[in-house]
Amino acid sequence: MKKIVTIGGGTGSYTVLRGLKNYDDIEISAIVSMADDGGSTGVLRDELGVLPPGDVRQCLLALSLHGDTVRKLMGYRFEEGTLKGHTFGNILLAGLEKTAGSFVKGVEIASDILKIRGRVIPVTEDIACLVITLEDGTQVFGENNINHSDIQAVGVKKVSFKESVRINEHAKLVILEADLIVLGPGNFYCSLMPNLIVDGFKEAIKESKAKIVLPINLTNKKGHTLFFDASDYLNEIETILDKKVDYIFCNNELPSDEQVEMYKMEEGDGVMVLNDLLSDERLISVSVLSHEIVEQNKSDKVASARSYIRHDSTKIAEAIHNLL
Amino acid sequence: MKKIVTIGGGTGSYTVLRGLKNYDDIEISAIVSMADDGGSTGVLRDELGVLPPGDVRQCLLALSLHGDTVRKLMGYRFEEGTLKGHTFGNILLAGLEKTAGSFVKGVEIASDILKIRGRVIPVTEDIACLVITLEDGTQVFGENNINHSDIQAVGVKKVSFKESVRINEHAKLVILEADLIVLGPGNFYCSLMPNLIVDGFKEAIKESKAKIVLPINLTNKKGHTLFFDASDYLNEIETILDKKVDYIFCNNELPSDEQVEMYKMEEGDGVMVLNDLLSDERLISVSVLSHEIVEQNKSDKVASARSYIRHDSTKIAEAIHNLL
Repeated sequence: MKKIVTIGGGTGSYTVLRGLKNYDDIEISAIVSMADDGGSTGVLRDELGVLPPGDVRQCLLALSLHGDTVRKLMGYRFEEGTLKGHTFGNILLAGLEKTAGSFVKGVEIASDILKIRGRVIPVTEDIACLVITLEDGTQVFGENNINHSDIQAVGVKKVSFKESVRINEHAKLVILEADLIVLGPGNFYCSLMPNLIVDGFKEAIKESKAKIVLPINLTNKKGHTLFFDASDYLNEIETILDKKVDYIFCNNELPSDEQVEMYKMEEGDGVMVLNDLLSDERLISVSVLSHEIVEQNKSDKVASARSYIRHDSTKIAEAIHNLL
Repeated sequence: MKKIVTIGGGTGSYTVLRGLKNYDDIEISAIVSMADDGGSTGVLRDELGVLPPGDVRQCLLALSLHGDTVRKLMGYRFEEGTLKGHTFGNILLAGLEKTAGSFVKGVEIASDILKIRGRVIPVTEDIACLVITLEDGTQVFGENNINHSDIQAVGVKKVSFKESVRINEHAKLVILEADLIVLGPGNFYCSLMPNLIVDGFKEAIKESKAKIVLPINLTNKKGHTLFFDASDYLNEIETILDKKVDYIFCNNELPSDEQVEMYKMEEGDGVMVLNDLLSDERLISVSVLSHEIVEQNKSDKVASARSYIRHDSTKIAEAIHNLL
């Protein structure tokens, strides 16, 4: 059995894992960022002092072999009363952390209850408050805050944590034993980076003999990575990790004019165009664009815009599996 | 496989089911009262418009084959923030009712998630507001309210629902197909009665060929059934059901002086003494007293007092199983 490790946290990881789940000849470990502090997750962190459940919940969901109802339950957001705004899956993970004694142990029990294929591993068990230091010395604290800030106008000098955050030993172990490590795709500063900068992470990557694949995002994020080329993502990541990646996925299928127009209306000029790295021998041109129509989320226009142009979980999983 | 149906809702049903779960040669169906409206259950009923999850949760817990951590999770009560006071298992059932489309469907999914042996069946899917009409015409509304009222001083004239409540077809079916029906033990007016008075319940019992066993409570409830003899329980139940029960369990093991003293300190003079029915040929003298020491619940003195004198789940399950 080949061992695949994904690194991420948000929708990107969800998409990749949902596809990988269908291959019986691999062992999947999903390493998940612990920096989330927005929405229901943020409230639970503040009020109960638990680790952030949101990203872990999404990865568990992606890997669950349960039917639609359990998946709907996990993502269900209560609409009234004192529970209003809370997502059921987050409450489950918070309750498990309280009763099992630790977040990691709680995630293991949730994995059993949800019948998941593979493992979901928080990148750290420490409290992780993400900090972006801008070129002018200003600091932006907290992932949710950063996610909604224009950090690109001044420019990002450094991505770090408020207090040092140590890699979870389970995460280290699966990185060391992996055959293939998938970096993303996903929100660059808010999902991928908060894994890469954890103390001990790059050392584990360095020591690992696994091949590394970087699927380049399909779109750039306004205020974060607008006008990034594939090489910009690549360079930033290789600098942080102090190691070369082995494969780079670039999507070769252009979105339709309609997809681009719809996207632009909400999120601006963020659609990635593959205009460099063409001569890089590590580049693998793949067709991974989704054509599925997604139900739009009226309360979150940016999420809706992003959903116009996104990865197809079957296609990206196949491209990853082909590397083994 | 012999089919056993329990009728109840609270701690009594929990105790019986926990013991019955260990017999592989029976099919267990737990019919559960839907009148609960106190605590976390009451808040969820009011705020989310869901059916009361509390009693169902306890029965699911009793029948779950999961380990301690999942059982602890189901009963875990959040202590801080917006979730304060809510029991996790209640939130689970509320979320399932919302996402599965009905409470009964939600309970089925919870049964799958919790790996339960047997079935838990809400006695009705209708909204059930319990009403006690006293001898002077006064009415007391709501189970939680009734539970904390002295309804015995004036005397109970009638137990009913505010609006008529129809038996759930699944409940009817298991009653019709049962080999043995267990009425209680448990809170007489607040757990047992709210099942018996559901429209269609007594008709189902009448039509069923099942034997009926009535385990007489170990204690009487202050303000409700104080000084009740075994025959008082029996007569009330047989009048409501318009049918004779087949067996009556009376505990033959006296609690220790210490148990009685501890009990009296909180709950008064409620310890049942078997002083009648001795010549009734349906009487089965059983030794079903628990000697296990229970951790006391400081926030609920009455629950604590009751826990001094209670059924042993292994012993009562064995006595029930012996009837088959």
